[in-house]
Amino acid sequence: MPETLLQPLRPLEVATDRPLRVDAALTFIGVIRTPWKTRDECPKQGDREAGPECRLEFEAPWGEALDGIERYTTLEVLYWLHRSRRDLIHQAPAHAGGTRGTFALRSPIRPNPIGTSMVRLLRREGSTLVVRGLDCLDGTPLVDVKPDRCRLEPAEAAG
Amino acid sequence: MPETLLQPLRPLEVATDRPLRVDAALTFIGVIRTPWKTRDECPKQGDREAGPECRLEFEAPWGEALDGIERYTTLEVLYWLHRSRRDLIHQAPAHAGGTRGTFALRSPIRPNPIGTSMVRLLRREGSTLVVRGLDCLDGTPLVDVKPDRCRLEPAEAAG
Repeated sequence: MPETLLQPLRPLEVATDRPLRVDAALTFIGVIRTPWKTRDECPKQGDREAGPECRLEFEAPWGEALDGIERYTTLEVLYWLHRSRRDLIHQAPAHAGGTRGTFALRSPIRPNPIGTSMVRLLRREGSTLVVRGLDCLDGTPLVDVKPDRCRLEPAEAAG
Repeated sequence: MPETLLQPLRPLEVATDRPLRVDAALTFIGVIRTPWKTRDECPKQGDREAGPECRLEFEAPWGEALDGIERYTTLEVLYWLHRSRRDLIHQAPAHAGGTRGTFALRSPIRPNPIGTSMVRLLRREGSTLVVRGLDCLDGTPLVDVKPDRCRLEPAEAAG
């Protein structure tokens, strides 16, 4: 993983030297298109109301699995943070004033680097969803999309 | 996968016959302990305020990665729905009155069967978190825990 070399440990950070056990396999269902080509360009946290339009492009056969999604305005998106190292136990994020355990942070560096975001669904264009509210790199692999659990809209409550 | 045999297709449901491509590997970081031993016993959706206490038991070396988590009251939990088939495109959930695309549902049946829940953190006991608000089977593999994105509590905003 050459990307790992781009993320050296900071002072006081602790990594495990155990190899990660492989327990389950993910299949990427598509790709996320955003304006951000480097990590430095990415906003700190997506702004659901003010951020730019982003695209969730689904691969066959998964585009058809979007049928009925138009009834929701808020979706939960899961994606694979493919450029992150996975072995840190204690991290020292910039401006945190010390270290914290990986699970006390939303850092992309985690044993299973899955990002989650709530986005606003603007429209569906065939096998693509146009949304607002993401903050990830262009080309990020897409793992899952679900209706927002927090907002039981009438159509969902009926189902 | 013998569990798949327990979930026959309902009328009008559509599955893909393409094998799932393997794109990334998950490593289970622990296991979830709940009172529910069968799917029929599981509640429909976890109730963060009224449900029973459940336990997130972290395996070594990940227990130490909890350091600092006590400052949060709401956590996002990701887990692997290990008993779900993964090939459905259109599903016909009971009481839905028709079919919907997989991504228009929060059904456990999805190409990447990752469940997400918001839980209330009651306390940490070493490498275990005691929480309220889950609805998954006892023995469900644990994939990730993060502070709740929706609740930028003071401690998190400072980091």
